[in-house]
Amino acid sequence: MKIIKKIEKAIQQKRTFCSFEYFPPKTPQGVNNLYDRFERMALLGPEFIDVTWNAGGVTSDLTIEICSNAQTVYGLETNMHLTCTNMPVEKIDHALREAKKSGVQNIFALRGDPPRGVKDWTKCENGFAYAIDLIRYIKKNYGDFFGIGVAGYPEVHPDSPSKEDDLRFLKEKVDAGGDFIISQYFYDVDLFLQWVKDCRAIGINCPILPGLLPIQTYDKFINMVRMNGTSVPDYILKDLEPIKEDDQAVKEYGIKLLTEMSKKLIANGIPGIHIYTMNLERSARVILENLGLAQSQEVVKPLPWNRSLKNNRLKENVRPIFWRNRIKSYIQRTDSWDEFPNGRWGDSRSPAFGEVNLHSSSSFRYSSEVCLEMWGKPEQTEDVYNVFASYLKGEIKALPWCETALHAESSVIRERLININKKGFLSINSQPSVNGVPSSDKIHGWGPKNGFVFQKAYLELFISPEKLEKLENAIKKDQYLSYYAINQKGNLKTNQVNESANAVTWGVFPGREIIQPTIVELVSFLAWKDEAFYLWNTWKSLYESNTKSYDIIDKISNEYYLINIVDNNFQREEKIYDILEEL
Amino acid sequence: MKIIKKIEKAIQQKRTFCSFEYFPPKTPQGVNNLYDRFERMALLGPEFIDVTWNAGGVTSDLTIEICSNAQTVYGLETNMHLTCTNMPVEKIDHALREAKKSGVQNIFALRGDPPRGVKDWTKCENGFAYAIDLIRYIKKNYGDFFGIGVAGYPEVHPDSPSKEDDLRFLKEKVDAGGDFIISQYFYDVDLFLQWVKDCRAIGINCPILPGLLPIQTYDKFINMVRMNGTSVPDYILKDLEPIKEDDQAVKEYGIKLLTEMSKKLIANGIPGIHIYTMNLERSARVILENLGLAQSQEVVKPLPWNRSLKNNRLKENVRPIFWRNRIKSYIQRTDSWDEFPNGRWGDSRSPAFGEVNLHSSSSFRYSSEVCLEMWGKPEQTEDVYNVFASYLKGEIKALPWCETALHAESSVIRERLININKKGFLSINSQPSVNGVPSSDKIHGWGPKNGFVFQKAYLELFISPEKLEKLENAIKKDQYLSYYAINQKGNLKTNQVNESANAVTWGVFPGREIIQPTIVELVSFLAWKDEAFYLWNTWKSLYESNTKSYDIIDKISNEYYLINIVDNNFQREEKIYDILEEL
Repeated sequence: MKIIKKIEKAIQQKRTFCSFEYFPPKTPQGVNNLYDRFERMALLGPEFIDVTWNAGGVTSDLTIEICSNAQTVYGLETNMHLTCTNMPVEKIDHALREAKKSGVQNIFALRGDPPRGVKDWTKCENGFAYAIDLIRYIKKNYGDFFGIGVAGYPEVHPDSPSKEDDLRFLKEKVDAGGDFIISQYFYDVDLFLQWVKDCRAIGINCPILPGLLPIQTYDKFINMVRMNGTSVPDYILKDLEPIKEDDQAVKEYGIKLLTEMSKKLIANGIPGIHIYTMNLERSARVILENLGLAQSQEVVKPLPWNRSLKNNRLKENVRPIFWRNRIKSYIQRTDSWDEFPNGRWGDSRSPAFGEVNLHSSSSFRYSSEVCLEMWGKPEQTEDVYNVFASYLKGEIKALPWCETALHAESSVIRERLININKKGFLSINSQPSVNGVPSSDKIHGWGPKNGFVFQKAYLELFISPEKLEKLENAIKKDQYLSYYAINQKGNLKTNQVNESANAVTWGVFPGREIIQPTIVELVSFLAWKDEAFYLWNTWKSLYESNTKSYDIIDKISNEYYLINIVDNNFQREEKIYDILEEL
Repeated sequence: MKIIKKIEKAIQQKRTFCSFEYFPPKTPQGVNNLYDRFERMALLGPEFIDVTWNAGGVTSDLTIEICSNAQTVYGLETNMHLTCTNMPVEKIDHALREAKKSGVQNIFALRGDPPRGVKDWTKCENGFAYAIDLIRYIKKNYGDFFGIGVAGYPEVHPDSPSKEDDLRFLKEKVDAGGDFIISQYFYDVDLFLQWVKDCRAIGINCPILPGLLPIQTYDKFINMVRMNGTSVPDYILKDLEPIKEDDQAVKEYGIKLLTEMSKKLIANGIPGIHIYTMNLERSARVILENLGLAQSQEVVKPLPWNRSLKNNRLKENVRPIFWRNRIKSYIQRTDSWDEFPNGRWGDSRSPAFGEVNLHSSSSFRYSSEVCLEMWGKPEQTEDVYNVFASYLKGEIKALPWCETALHAESSVIRERLININKKGFLSINSQPSVNGVPSSDKIHGWGPKNGFVFQKAYLELFISPEKLEKLENAIKKDQYLSYYAINQKGNLKTNQVNESANAVTWGVFPGREIIQPTIVELVSFLAWKDEAFYLWNTWKSLYESNTKSYDIIDKISNEYYLINIVDNNFQREEKIYDILEEL
């Protein structure tokens, strides 16, 4: 969706909004951390996010990749920066095509900084000299598909001959197709407000968002404002002087300062604020909390998982539970689907989960060294059990199937999970039962307000064939448990007679149908199974073949079954664990 | 579905089944009573029902109409009897075409009794002489569409030259296309079992169902068995002798007798029993209860309303709540839909509820005289209020919108309904809230076993514009209530912003999606509105125009609003009534 539409809606609803700007990190680990941050900061309810263009970076496609993931995996409306610097038109076209493909519908059109050390920069051959050229090119070649944001300079762009010229350039950019303006950062609110008035005076009528840069340390702050020639009111420098050696105090002062600046901006009719996060979380969060802008659940979490904002997925409202810890893989697998919901409600159930390149999709976030440190060198099967238990205890960060920490909602069953894992019931996915708690519930809530949400308890395990046999017998005695179990060879065991989907998370809301966003069903389980068993390789590949550790992992992945168990009685708790502990 | 398929499935599942036979009643009132009986007796879980052919009756199409309604409205698999007596082939074709149209897929092919007083009967011109001719005709002209049942005579058909001939005739009927046999009634089980053996001996291999006729009174019983030459074991006559004047005792004896007979039949491998109900309910019910055959909820009530068995409706699993007391009208209105569910889950939401002939659809079950007796001659508006209250108290049988008694589930809110009706909140439909009771619950339960069912409280009222205004203000203060109100002119008031369907009844079952069979939504409410307001005419037409009573009803129907209210908080009870009583 175009950001201008979202801004206009917020203005109409008289709802002050925020947006966050990030830059592409330098390391793969940094990128993964940024994604975690996306997920957490999404809970603050930004109207959109910006990702800057790393034209000069090592991997020039990183911005595109991050934007694509933000949009499709994390469900964040993304404003992709694009600069002219060092960008031949072919490269610009590539970036625009890729953005369009992944549903990114907003481009922030910039000239960009000249390459470092080059003083009098000229446009590259077969490229553009100014942002306005880029805007015109986008409009000409992509029609109305992209929304376009442009940069504004409250204190005059250093390359502009005069304040008047600067305002005129800005108006030209807007006239050429800019939908809204984000300002360079500033610390003098009066100056900003005057600039907005100047803009309005020459006929710039689109929304203008103030860019706010939290202060991290005194030195960085001073360097930054000096380099950019940013005015800093005297009182700020005076306030900072006594605490300038205390990074923590400086940071807190910055939060307080930006909170006050924001209040004044909002009081003067500014519709929303844009925070240059520098990929950091805390300052942005506290400022928003101070302003009372950390969004309500309703805006934040329409479904228990992040809705993808890729165009063809906008109606997606159901997913199998299996990929809950592997969302990116799920999005990738189902990328070619032309209709959502799929695998449900009709014949669109497709050969869909089809082929996915497990090698590439399973590229693990941690290096072999880190993995080896986490998982050690098992000498016996029980060592593997203990690795799973350690993950649940929070002693190690990840398992091949779980790249991030245990879901908050699973903490109520954490102790029981640890117990059973130690005994060789190796869990890779779980959710507790929830019996009609308000949709505003801090832990389990999702969906519109005044609703009620439910879950059936779910547990997914790797277990030995012997344990499976015992478990199947125990399940027979209980009328509410259903399961599917399968080994690597595809030997399927189940107590289900029909193949219909089992809704394991659903919500009841005023004036609506029941929404059932998470299901367990055979077709998708069969697709998940290949991935789940393949992921043992992430672990096995740490060891030379013919070593004891290699053999242990190899044996488990060849012999164990993957079983998913649903307790269809959502009115009781932890029955599955009672049974497992008694086996 | 063909009955033989159902029989085969029951045999495979080793589940003894039953079926009921009815005849077309002589009066419209009798027909309506029969439909009520269908509904109640459906709860006993008959595998199918038979409706006899009233070839000699006044309205020869009555059998067709009853079969069509049994199949489409009451969801009973129906075996339509068809005889050759007095039936030219055109009439037979008409009957078969109509049956096919309404989804009746089973024909019970009979020669039929000769017309009364005609001793040596011969086939009518352009007709058939024997059942076998009819069977061949059906097979030739309708291919495999119809399943065919045939009659068998354990004690030899009176017109058959010999027992051997009789068995041969039966075999010929089966060979020509008869799927299964229902026997003439009998009271000598040994004789029946021997006859089955005889059938098997000459190669009749299809299922043979014993026909059982409960005893009503001694005289009727004796006349019947004499006329048909039915053997009655001595002990039965001896048992009856001392109680023959006591109709009740005779009836009870008959129940005991048929229970014992059934037990012996079942013990000897007979797969199910066919009861000639004579349109009566109690004997059949008690016999089945004695045998433990009154079916479990799972078989009986897959949805909270009776599933229609018309072919195109087999997947129907959602209906608007508005026609809950006017099912026939709903089926009729939506008859042309080619897809169910409709009005939901997609674009099949059609102009669908379109036109229905209100005059014919609203033909009321009671005569003007009965109506006048029930509703009296209102002298003031309060008299109308009291009529509604009287209906709720059970003092009168019907209202124009409610032809049968208040639903059992609404009895928990009966007192409160009476209270508000007396105050002019005229209720025509309601359901209490239900918060996850077992699907086996006697009152609220439906759907597969081990499930849980829910309801949002629902109330539909006619109210004056003044009351509506107060009510709207009260609703504003509550975050959980949603409503649509409309007057005859189509003036709509609502607090709903989107037009999505509101699921007001849903069920959660093992291994399945959430099933949500009853909804409230605007599109269907707009269609219902015309019908609901029109039904005031049933009442108004009792009076001459220019009378006080006429004017009162006319004024109400012209001025009042129809409002439906949903309490979206299914975890609380009776909130709507608290609000209405406080207004």
